[in-house]
Amino acid sequence: MIKQKKRGSLFVLSGPSGVGKNTLIDTVLKRNTDIVYSISATTRKPRIQEKDGVNYYFLSKERFEQMILENAFLEWAEFCDNYYGTPIAPIEKTLNKGIDVIMDIEIKGAKQVAQRWPDAVLIFLIPPSIDELARRIKNRRTETSEEIDARLAQSLVEMNVGRMYDYYLVHDNTEHTVLELEAIRLAESLKVKRTDWDLVIDSLKGDLNA
Amino acid sequence: MIKQKKRGSLFVLSGPSGVGKNTLIDTVLKRNTDIVYSISATTRKPRIQEKDGVNYYFLSKERFEQMILENAFLEWAEFCDNYYGTPIAPIEKTLNKGIDVIMDIEIKGAKQVAQRWPDAVLIFLIPPSIDELARRIKNRRTETSEEIDARLAQSLVEMNVGRMYDYYLVHDNTEHTVLELEAIRLAESLKVKRTDWDLVIDSLKGDLNA
Repeated sequence: MIKQKKRGSLFVLSGPSGVGKNTLIDTVLKRNTDIVYSISATTRKPRIQEKDGVNYYFLSKERFEQMILENAFLEWAEFCDNYYGTPIAPIEKTLNKGIDVIMDIEIKGAKQVAQRWPDAVLIFLIPPSIDELARRIKNRRTETSEEIDARLAQSLVEMNVGRMYDYYLVHDNTEHTVLELEAIRLAESLKVKRTDWDLVIDSLKGDLNA
Repeated sequence: MIKQKKRGSLFVLSGPSGVGKNTLIDTVLKRNTDIVYSISATTRKPRIQEKDGVNYYFLSKERFEQMILENAFLEWAEFCDNYYGTPIAPIEKTLNKGIDVIMDIEIKGAKQVAQRWPDAVLIFLIPPSIDELARRIKNRRTETSEEIDARLAQSLVEMNVGRMYDYYLVHDNTEHTVLELEAIRLAESLKVKRTDWDLVIDSLKGDLNA
């Protein structure tokens, strides 16, 4: 049996607001111990029940801009007058341990990740329909009717950006969608390009001489 | 729910002789109705229990060379004084129906497929160890001791070629390996590049206007 310590992979999940990225990620994390969530930093105010260091690192605008200058983000973006970004250091540390990282970022951020981290696996999550997306956003009851309309309009524009992603998932049923996400993780771990092929050959030969 | 008729994908399985390509393929075919085996053509003599049109199309050397001239093969190769090749026409017909095709070809052939059919998914099957490969070839009892030694030596050389494949699978336990192969199939079907993204967007919008 060939065993090798592999570097973890970085999974980037994007999709329109309200599509259920958090639900999907929570389910993946509950079912798997070898993947962790990358906590983003943001300057936006916490929603009810959101906690600093759990949902986001809630930073001041000044601190965030300082980290931008220090090149400490894998990606960052400005959205609705707030910054969102992903600190690089904790991700590299986790991947080096052979643990996968999953992150949930805006589309602008995903583009930056694709450029800066070509090995990242980009996944675009879409709703079964725009009607269903509207229902989910309304049920969240955190936005005004105008904000919801703006979000839906933006979602349709954002759908176009899905073309640049590696994979897409339809979030119809979380139990089903999470199995698809796990298949993607398994398949990616079986990619030759993610493997030290010399080690594979050596381990086969080693057996012969043993 | 977004449904679209997708074109099937072509899966190419290679690996050293005796690694168990047939066992793996038989298991995949038994478990799935939406994938078929691409029957190769060859000029080598049938082994015991091999049937024309089932294991291979057993062709004369003259007929095979004529088809080469007609450009009727997706790939072909000469190996141990015999030709092996894959007729294109039946594969295209099957893929157009949305059914996947899996084929088992020599390494030389796989290189040709990668060039001629860039969307093909190339999978390299390796044994858990060279010792185990030797045992399997000996158990097959179809080759002399010298032929076995030649095959093992060639297998180690061939292992190098694994680098050009998309995925690799270790054939330790068929039940386990087939699950990995099925994860690859599912993941590939979720790739954006295999999807008509305009159709995806239209189907979302269509719901909105309904």
